Amino acid sequence: MNVPSPFPSGAVTVREVGLRDGLQIIPRVMPTADKLAWLHGAYAAGLREIEVGSFVPPTRMPQLADTAELVQAALALPGAKVSVLVPNLKGGLSALASGAHAMLFPVSASEAHSLANLRKTPAQAVAEVANIRAERDAAGSRCEIEVGISTAFGCTIQGVVEPAAVVALVQAALMAGADTISLADTVGYADPRAVSELVAAVERVAPGRVVAAHFHDTRGLGVANVMAAFHAGIRRFDACLGGIGGCPHAPGASGNVATEDVAYVMASMGVQTGLDLDALFALREQLQGWLVDQPMYGHIAAAGLPKTMNTKEAA
Amino acid sequence: MNVPSPFPSGAVTVREVGLRDGLQIIPRVMPTADKLAWLHGAYAAGLREIEVGSFVPPTRMPQLADTAELVQAALALPGAKVSVLVPNLKGGLSALASGAHAMLFPVSASEAHSLANLRKTPAQAVAEVANIRAERDAAGSRCEIEVGISTAFGCTIQGVVEPAAVVALVQAALMAGADTISLADTVGYADPRAVSELVAAVERVAPGRVVAAHFHDTRGLGVANVMAAFHAGIRRFDACLGGIGGCPHAPGASGNVATEDVAYVMASMGVQTGLDLDALFALREQLQGWLVDQPMYGHIAAAGLPKTMNTKEAA
Repeated sequence: MNVPSPFPSGAVTVREVGLRDGLQIIPRVMPTADKLAWLHGAYAAGLREIEVGSFVPPTRMPQLADTAELVQAALALPGAKVSVLVPNLKGGLSALASGAHAMLFPVSASEAHSLANLRKTPAQAVAEVANIRAERDAAGSRCEIEVGISTAFGCTIQGVVEPAAVVALVQAALMAGADTISLADTVGYADPRAVSELVAAVERVAPGRVVAAHFHDTRGLGVANVMAAFHAGIRRFDACLGGIGGCPHAPGASGNVATEDVAYVMASMGVQTGLDLDALFALREQLQGWLVDQPMYGHIAAAGLPKTMNTKEAA
Repeated sequence: MNVPSPFPSGAVTVREVGLRDGLQIIPRVMPTADKLAWLHGAYAAGLREIEVGSFVPPTRMPQLADTAELVQAALALPGAKVSVLVPNLKGGLSALASGAHAMLFPVSASEAHSLANLRKTPAQAVAEVANIRAERDAAGSRCEIEVGISTAFGCTIQGVVEPAAVVALVQAALMAGADTISLADTVGYADPRAVSELVAAVERVAPGRVVAAHFHDTRGLGVANVMAAFHAGIRRFDACLGGIGGCPHAPGASGNVATEDVAYVMASMGVQTGLDLDALFALREQLQGWLVDQPMYGHIAAAGLPKTMNTKEAA
């Protein structure tokens, strides 16, 4: 079958964000020991980029109060790239002090979402990027500052988010000192066409700086959107084991695209991720044990791998 | 945002196959009155291609014993294209007698699956296509003969199905008198790359004859595979309302890609389907009432449409 493949080549990195995005809306605090077991299990399954928590005030989010401890544990894993979310300069300083390799600073493209979540306009949030960058440089740190554009594909509060607003925000974030950019479909509004077009538009003004995409599977388009971003040149995807990280106000709606589903689609296509699917399935079982009342999402774990999978892998 | 879109244009047709593929594995016979209500609801929601049943011996599949009655009812719907599945010449004769616009004759690309399901090799199945074609022509009928290549992306019994075998089978089916071809991922093994490559390979030997793709969402790749086929030029997709049609031996695994999910992804991208999403959601509710113990699948019905959807539609 000497048919030329229209499929791009190149390996893909999955960044496990379950310890942050997955847990942040779960009220019952997961014991640090369980989080460490999850972290080590994720590493053993081949995950090499892991977002371990968020430097937010513990009073605001008790679930993530042990972030510094998780950063330390993750830094001990050879070859792991350890990231944390930071909502402001104070969080940024904690990230610098922690030694994390990267900090994700979210800036919402939706003015309404930005005001509701951070009590800042997008422009004010971007100003904080400059403050963080100044502190980072003054400290002589090499911690990567990744600005994550939230609600990049629409917003439950504001509705439509114009792609032009996202492009302008990306430009402003880079001018303010962001090293890299990621695009997040925070509320599950993206579709493959929107992904394809927005990635292309952002790449035009920030070539090589858009390093990751973050999709939710809320409306069943998670994997399709990953594929659209993959075709548009993105090679790093956020995902949560078990597809957790859904919105508590949308019962039945799944959360982040599941780590194991992204690993599966890539493996099916022969795209390297370095991930061990069986290990991910086993870890998912463990996770269900740690989060007993939490529904798990994603498809491949329930259905099982195709009989043809090993054959393909060996080929 | 004058970014050129890499997205193809053109409307898409969704063929509702729930009355056949969805029901065929459900043992409790659905009353004909309920099926007629489903048929009329599907039509009212904008579906214009509907597979209403299968001409198999009623003793073998009592669920579909009322197929002739459903064909008659569907033929009364203006503009509807009515199709039925036929497993052999006898079924083909019934289809001709029924006045259906099209008959779908499945030929499995997996030798093992073909023998297990039809007790025929793929070559023997193709021979039956010639018999059906001869009868069709002798009857002066214009009933379209669509050969559906089952297990085109792999088989739970045999494992790997070589794309070359699918291409050869398509050529043989056309030589035997098939009018059109569809490709079916009967067991949910397809991935976007395989879809893209197989559609391209088949198109090369049968340009313009591959008119539909049939995907299951068993492993969560249903919509991603639809998208891959869409990019490869396919403009008609089989789907089942509520994502029914799963394998009874794979608990938790979803079935056919859900009609409402395909309608949603296309509407999100501004691709015309003629479908009314709210009407599909209401019909799904009714379907759940008719099939009380049957799990429903798909994502968009549970999550609800994005707030931005109407805006987009109006744009």
